[in-house]
Amino acid sequence: EEVAKLLDLKAQLGDEPTPKTVLKTPKGTRDYSPKQMAIREGVFKVIVDCFKRHGAETIDTPVFELKETLTGKYGEDSKLIYDLQDQGGELLSLRYDLTVPFARYVAMNKIAKIKRYHIAKVYRRDNPAMTRGRYREFYQCDFDIAGQYDPMIPDAECIKIVYEILDNLKLGNFVIKVNHRLILDGLFEVCGVPKDKFRTVCSSVDKLDKTFWEDVRGEMIDDKGLDPISADKIGEYVQLNGSSELVEKLLKDEQLVQSKAAKEGLEGMKLLIQYCDIFGVKDRVRFDMSLARGLDYYTGVIYEAVLEGAELVKSNSKSKEQIGVGSVAGGGRYDGLVGMFAAKGKKVPCVGVSIGIERLFSIMEAKMERGNQEVRTVETEVLVASAQPNMLEERLRLCKELWDAGIKAEISYKANPKMLDQYQYAEKAVIPFLAVIGEQS
Amino acid sequence: EEVAKLLDLKAQLGDEPTPKTVLKTPKGTRDYSPKQMAIREGVFKVIVDCFKRHGAETIDTPVFELKETLTGKYGEDSKLIYDLQDQGGELLSLRYDLTVPFARYVAMNKIAKIKRYHIAKVYRRDNPAMTRGRYREFYQCDFDIAGQYDPMIPDAECIKIVYEILDNLKLGNFVIKVNHRLILDGLFEVCGVPKDKFRTVCSSVDKLDKTFWEDVRGEMIDDKGLDPISADKIGEYVQLNGSSELVEKLLKDEQLVQSKAAKEGLEGMKLLIQYCDIFGVKDRVRFDMSLARGLDYYTGVIYEAVLEGAELVKSNSKSKEQIGVGSVAGGGRYDGLVGMFAAKGKKVPCVGVSIGIERLFSIMEAKMERGNQEVRTVETEVLVASAQPNMLEERLRLCKELWDAGIKAEISYKANPKMLDQYQYAEKAVIPFLAVIGEQS
Repeated sequence: EEVAKLLDLKAQLGDEPTPKTVLKTPKGTRDYSPKQMAIREGVFKVIVDCFKRHGAETIDTPVFELKETLTGKYGEDSKLIYDLQDQGGELLSLRYDLTVPFARYVAMNKIAKIKRYHIAKVYRRDNPAMTRGRYREFYQCDFDIAGQYDPMIPDAECIKIVYEILDNLKLGNFVIKVNHRLILDGLFEVCGVPKDKFRTVCSSVDKLDKTFWEDVRGEMIDDKGLDPISADKIGEYVQLNGSSELVEKLLKDEQLVQSKAAKEGLEGMKLLIQYCDIFGVKDRVRFDMSLARGLDYYTGVIYEAVLEGAELVKSNSKSKEQIGVGSVAGGGRYDGLVGMFAAKGKKVPCVGVSIGIERLFSIMEAKMERGNQEVRTVETEVLVASAQPNMLEERLRLCKELWDAGIKAEISYKANPKMLDQYQYAEKAVIPFLAVIGEQS
Repeated sequence: EEVAKLLDLKAQLGDEPTPKTVLKTPKGTRDYSPKQMAIREGVFKVIVDCFKRHGAETIDTPVFELKETLTGKYGEDSKLIYDLQDQGGELLSLRYDLTVPFARYVAMNKIAKIKRYHIAKVYRRDNPAMTRGRYREFYQCDFDIAGQYDPMIPDAECIKIVYEILDNLKLGNFVIKVNHRLILDGLFEVCGVPKDKFRTVCSSVDKLDKTFWEDVRGEMIDDKGLDPISADKIGEYVQLNGSSELVEKLLKDEQLVQSKAAKEGLEGMKLLIQYCDIFGVKDRVRFDMSLARGLDYYTGVIYEAVLEGAELVKSNSKSKEQIGVGSVAGGGRYDGLVGMFAAKGKKVPCVGVSIGIERLFSIMEAKMERGNQEVRTVETEVLVASAQPNMLEERLRLCKELWDAGIKAEISYKANPKMLDQYQYAEKAVIPFLAVIGEQS
């Protein structure tokens, strides 16, 4: 009980008006004001409506996972994971994305097929660039299809979904870049990259949307020890982009199709573009051989949607600040991830896409401000007011009637509010009706 | 670059089919399945509709705060806070409730008045009792009114809100217990409790809904060193409960009203019950002098809603397992909390209520299962099917038409699915329409 007393005293001390603490949110995070929440809810509605239109269920998982669940899934990015302090008990980490928790969920519940969306915050100890919508705490909106299906049908639906969402949000032109991990693998193979360098070369190639080829080439040779001849051969391929005609051309490239992987990837790409054509989204899809995506777990198609006009000017700076800010959605196929969790390594093929919602919020917010658009933060329909004193009881009574009838109503919390104040509040909150109570004279 | 190479190799090793990790969520947490999510969204809708009906805006804050923001706010419960590991940078903790982040938000943004709701997860390293809806990660649904207003008007609206939500969820009878910190303070004063023991005695009193008076009395005397005469005097009061007639009786209690605090509290209680009567909720409100609530920051009215039939049998066990499981909502007035953060200690009076949603989920889930009620987890309106082979393209094309028209549609991801499989899927997912494509023979 001595301890309890001391704790109690300590708690009391804490309540004294001691020197104030710093008033801020943690680095890389922010609060959402009511106005920002109204915008956020609008964007969420477009996204959720789309996911539901495509028949998806939703799930939720805890904000933290066992540390070991996240280990070995993110390659070089693992250093960005937030760990919880060891306070006795399990070692925990905040989730880094929603994909690994999803794979853990599928394996743990022995699910053979599921189409689900998941909207939740994820955490990365990255260098924040908040004006450009890059935070340490940010939302991901993921749609994934798990199950053994015929090639490219679910993959094409993911692209259709990205298309619908970006189209509905009316953010201007966009392009959905696609590539295939097997094409990249085959490409590296025929260019003479040693197999143990595939991944690291892949992550160099991935920088091509932000830096010039010369810098990427330099990194491959100087930092990663790649043969300059290999690097130059890679350069010839990864600067190509196009559509079905490029796929056709590459399928006739005798050097490339020597690789079984490349051939399989190219045939997949052909089918994917064909389905995209049926879905009416082919015009927005660009087969881009430089698209690589950093994460380890992709095994097939990969995609990334970029808003035009929001793309960065290429620079030769290697600054981390600039990575991925033009990208508003990304994803791909990851057939091996569930197997990493499942008993006996049973594989469940998956493909999915993640909408980069923070970037979309930032753009919508800027758009609203430019357009001077008024955003309503409350939905109140009636303000119950009075111009006379001593009407509190009558106002409360009428408000109760309205609430009980399902009508959104408010009153001033003053016993005798001024009429002008009530008017002004109704105007500011854009409340359409005013119910004024008064006695007949 | 040597480090990069090693990291890379390490990442590759992580991908090998090494011994499987334990497949579980962290202690005290759970996943939500699609069915649970459907129930959860139904409950959220009732709650959010109510908050909006009362004119509330919504905000959001980060899942973690600077550690110092949470320090000295929770008394003995501070030991339940999750800290993040010091990975260089700020010291962070997961939020313990939504009230302290709200006060930080109000102070930081120099807000004079706001009526907001906030629905988000909070974290407590408590002993989980998951079958009874007690988790380490759980949702709170908070509604708070901040601002300088006339007495008891916002306080009564909070009670009305709890009433509407519990009434709309149709969970059976409930009672909303109310008390006032000033009444407790006055009571302790006239019973001769030394001022520095108010809080610790308060937390003993708070256990009266779970244990017998004899045990509470014993704890006060033996553990907290209270004079037995004081304890017995307290006992006479804290076992009282009632409504306006009890308030009237106590206002005539000469011993009690010697205390200025008690008198002020009782007069507030009288007004509160009067407003509750106008709001038509008086029958459910019980003035209960044993209600104390553990948290440090309350300064006025406190409340707690309890489902009848869900209340626990009293036991003389002090087991932590049994705390608060019958309670489904709670809150109170905390006029000093914002001032702890604000420059120059500027106070912003606040009152609010928190809906204990996990408990409500558990009850709803059990109810659904008992009633064998089917919960739809998708909203699909049309399954586009075919009984003939080689109809993939036609199915994709029709599905596109439906999606573009805003109709929720699905297809099988097989190139040539069996008709029976398609029927069965539609039946299982309760999809009302089947669009069957076939060639005329």
